[in-house]
Amino acid sequence: MAQPSDGIEPVPSSRGVTLNDVATAAGVTLGTASKALNGRGKLSAETRERVRTEAKRLGFRFRELKQEEASSSGLLIGVLTTDIYGRFSLPLLTSIEDSFGSIPISAVLCTSRDQEREQQHIDLLLSRGVDGIIVTARREDVRQPINVGRTPVPVVYAFTQVADANALCILPDEIQGTRLAIEHLIQTGRRRFAHITGPSYFEAVRLREQSMRQVLAEHDLRLSEHQALSGPWQESWGYTAARYLFDQDSSIDAIFCGSDQLARGACDALRERGIRVPEDVAVVGYDNWEPIACASRPTLTTIDMNFAQIGRYAGESLQALIAGEVRSGVVRLPCSLIVRESSIANEAERR
Amino acid sequence: MAQPSDGIEPVPSSRGVTLNDVATAAGVTLGTASKALNGRGKLSAETRERVRTEAKRLGFRFRELKQEEASSSGLLIGVLTTDIYGRFSLPLLTSIEDSFGSIPISAVLCTSRDQEREQQHIDLLLSRGVDGIIVTARREDVRQPINVGRTPVPVVYAFTQVADANALCILPDEIQGTRLAIEHLIQTGRRRFAHITGPSYFEAVRLREQSMRQVLAEHDLRLSEHQALSGPWQESWGYTAARYLFDQDSSIDAIFCGSDQLARGACDALRERGIRVPEDVAVVGYDNWEPIACASRPTLTTIDMNFAQIGRYAGESLQALIAGEVRSGVVRLPCSLIVRESSIANEAERR
Repeated sequence: MAQPSDGIEPVPSSRGVTLNDVATAAGVTLGTASKALNGRGKLSAETRERVRTEAKRLGFRFRELKQEEASSSGLLIGVLTTDIYGRFSLPLLTSIEDSFGSIPISAVLCTSRDQEREQQHIDLLLSRGVDGIIVTARREDVRQPINVGRTPVPVVYAFTQVADANALCILPDEIQGTRLAIEHLIQTGRRRFAHITGPSYFEAVRLREQSMRQVLAEHDLRLSEHQALSGPWQESWGYTAARYLFDQDSSIDAIFCGSDQLARGACDALRERGIRVPEDVAVVGYDNWEPIACASRPTLTTIDMNFAQIGRYAGESLQALIAGEVRSGVVRLPCSLIVRESSIANEAERR
Repeated sequence: MAQPSDGIEPVPSSRGVTLNDVATAAGVTLGTASKALNGRGKLSAETRERVRTEAKRLGFRFRELKQEEASSSGLLIGVLTTDIYGRFSLPLLTSIEDSFGSIPISAVLCTSRDQEREQQHIDLLLSRGVDGIIVTARREDVRQPINVGRTPVPVVYAFTQVADANALCILPDEIQGTRLAIEHLIQTGRRRFAHITGPSYFEAVRLREQSMRQVLAEHDLRLSEHQALSGPWQESWGYTAARYLFDQDSSIDAIFCGSDQLARGACDALRERGIRVPEDVAVVGYDNWEPIACASRPTLTTIDMNFAQIGRYAGESLQALIAGEVRSGVVRLPCSLIVRESSIANEAERR
């Protein structure tokens, strides 16, 4: 059933003309232009016609919907994921739907346990007239592009990426997220850093460590070889790694962790040794996974990858692609710093 | 768009004759009989015809598939959920798919954030020819039946239930699960029990406490009023409740908790007081949610609601309903006891 990847028909090109240009020419908002071209939502026949006329005049190509599609009860968006725990995929589902505003849409999640199962999901979705596909994952690393055969169904990659310059991939900005964490620690007076993280075959692990070293260097600080420990994504690793770090060097005053689970394990180890967090050592996690970050004692300052923002951007991009616009490349969206108790002792400073 | 619920056309009745009877009469397995009647999967034309002839002879009604359906690339099963964290729904997705064996199928998850959104998902799925719907939730309590209008699309409720005798609802057996936990504690010598649990407006909370009291009574033991504490589903509540219990009565030797998060919070509180788990007090959780149960110190003995089993049963039932069989009522499937460190000190006893 699989097609060779060179059998994929490219989305018709409208390079140079954007949906925005069409909206401006027709004197309508971007959302109205999108609705007019994709045939969904409530619009007057006059507005729809005006937008379509301008699009044709400008050479902006869009899909002419069949009557049957236009009269259907909404758009079907398939979301493929390898994240079987749903921590990363479920927040995307709701924000993808939100991005379509009042256009009726169902974002449906399929679990890609293996390549064969994934292709089966894609074939089934195509056979049921799926309007767009978003591919996501439990990790951001490069994967194979999916194969939609000769169909023009648009695809967006979110929280994962492919080595294809024509694909659109939306990722959290790990470099910027790490910068937020490290600059926060420096600004609150920390100087002697350690790093506890996950396996280095994750791209995110490598990007975060690289960014951490970069920001420290900008402040004439450094992370010594003995103070960056990489291991499994488990609380017990955070616990063990923190004990090891303090066996070697009790002067450490800040630990940046690659996940909230690692940070929580580190906090437990420090508390047991009578080392106070954050008075003696500040700890910052990553993920803002609330069942862990808020149950940790102290609660964790952490980096939020803003999955809702990634989902909204993916949904908006898919809408543009459905309308015929061309979008490609890797887009990295900013992370946020969530300050809780583990990095700043003083309540006033935290504000 | 919503129809009154009395407008729902019932699935044609074949009461008395089961798919099993058809399989036996045709000399094939249940799976083969199902494939023959639903027109999917690989079967010889001769076998398919023999099963269909026997079904008609026995008066077993099945849906005659249109050619277009039979030639499609698989079954589309919609899974509606109110569980936006995916802890309960994602394990169901994969096990539903597994239950269909070699029949190509995609189980797709939609999040029902509110009634309007849920109806939109249902209408969209129906418009794309969904073959069956499984409704699930983040809690087991009674909900409104979904409205599939006048379509014959079969519906199964899993980890949720409706007040409709014609519906099929599949739930974990909370009474039996709690019995496993309490009998385990009694068998390992515990006599003075406490209970820390979630809000009592959850049916599961009421069933577990009722079962706990019943099992204790059978052993001439009791749970006093002061030793059953109900609060939010949060680790911090487990922590606070355990401290409160031991402020009142330091002779408690077993705490049964309504979730692993509550149990983990309780273990942390006891450790800080110098009370050893399990030597002084045994703790048993509920859920077998591994990021919590395995990160707890000590690791948690807990009750597993066996979502994979519930998913398989839901998938098999849907297959039978698609083939025309009638199934209804509330089915409660057994839970399992997972023994880790928090209930038995001695490694040998744990085996």
